[in-house]
Amino acid sequence: MNWRLHTDYRVYLVTDRELCLGRPLEDVVLAAVRGGAGAVQLREKHASSREFLELARALVSRIQPLGIPLIINDRADIALAAGAAGLHVGQSDLPPADARLLMGPEAIVGLSVETPEELKEAEAYDIDYVGLSPVFATPTKTDTHTPWGLEGLRAARAISPLRLVAIGGIHNDNAAAVAEAGAHSLAVVSEICSAEDPEEAARRLLAAFDCRTPQQGAF
Amino acid sequence: MNWRLHTDYRVYLVTDRELCLGRPLEDVVLAAVRGGAGAVQLREKHASSREFLELARALVSRIQPLGIPLIINDRADIALAAGAAGLHVGQSDLPPADARLLMGPEAIVGLSVETPEELKEAEAYDIDYVGLSPVFATPTKTDTHTPWGLEGLRAARAISPLRLVAIGGIHNDNAAAVAEAGAHSLAVVSEICSAEDPEEAARRLLAAFDCRTPQQGAF
Repeated sequence: MNWRLHTDYRVYLVTDRELCLGRPLEDVVLAAVRGGAGAVQLREKHASSREFLELARALVSRIQPLGIPLIINDRADIALAAGAAGLHVGQSDLPPADARLLMGPEAIVGLSVETPEELKEAEAYDIDYVGLSPVFATPTKTDTHTPWGLEGLRAARAISPLRLVAIGGIHNDNAAAVAEAGAHSLAVVSEICSAEDPEEAARRLLAAFDCRTPQQGAF
Repeated sequence: MNWRLHTDYRVYLVTDRELCLGRPLEDVVLAAVRGGAGAVQLREKHASSREFLELARALVSRIQPLGIPLIINDRADIALAAGAAGLHVGQSDLPPADARLLMGPEAIVGLSVETPEELKEAEAYDIDYVGLSPVFATPTKTDTHTPWGLEGLRAARAISPLRLVAIGGIHNDNAAAVAEAGAHSLAVVSEICSAEDPEEAARRLLAAFDCRTPQQGAF
């Protein structure tokens, strides 16, 4: 399957096990998928490689048969060994060109960009999206640059041909505004992971995305 | 090149940049190679993936043309992207079977074993050596099991068909005893990284290895 052609990025869950309120990650992910999340990124900054691989394999077996790609954060070896659909890299991770070579031509490769300069550079790579990070200030990640804000997102959309995944501080009450400002995708961590009802949280985000002003269009 | 057939494991340097007394890692590695180290493992537990890859590429370009393999600790993706000769995994890293699949049939794959049970299990894998860890108690790694000791090493040699890389607490003054007890390889971190003269330290270890009692034989 060529995941690059068939992924619905409107609501994109990025995981954080520590924010799942003690619930198994798999339960939270499956609830989000039922609610309409179309892509899931597994992010593990403290797990051993073996634990990371086991988590990845479990999620791949549950969501990829449903047509939902699992995208692994940073570790191409984990992505390859688990048969995950894609890889997400940041500016301190594998360079995007190396990520693409390792993952092959049909895998999803995404790249975080934190500045307009990085956004421009990203056009040179064979990637599927850029993660504009952070859109708003957020407690989930503290090592981030100045937020893009809605104005920065609008400017990015005006100049970039790339699919724009907005991440950082997106919640139900600002999701429509982020979509209106030009995001092709709403990526969230705590909004779903820490939601009392992750399925409902995903459903609301999808509804907010779809209520954006029509002239922005889908990607 | 099939590194599996042409590697001299007698003196095996495992790196730790923090123990290099402020000297560039590359300088320490090249000195060790001049002194006779026949294999080098790059171990980076705190570097970003990008920094890890850059270090790996620099070392690959310097030592592999000399016939010395660079073996990457834990990260198969870094090994593949850098063109490194091999991968070393621990019991919490990628499972050896996955490591072999990712690295391909001609790469070196090594596995750490900390107990006789793990040593026995290791026979099932397509690996090039096991790292018996630790042979002696050592301040370099604190998360380790009971040391194998010389008796444990002798017993391992008596029952295992695998190439045995001894690691942990090996110094110039016990190196000959470790080789005599049956190690096919002396792996060291601080003995070379923190040596005033890493080249001389490697040379002495090689000499100590070669002075072992002849009946043990080379692998």
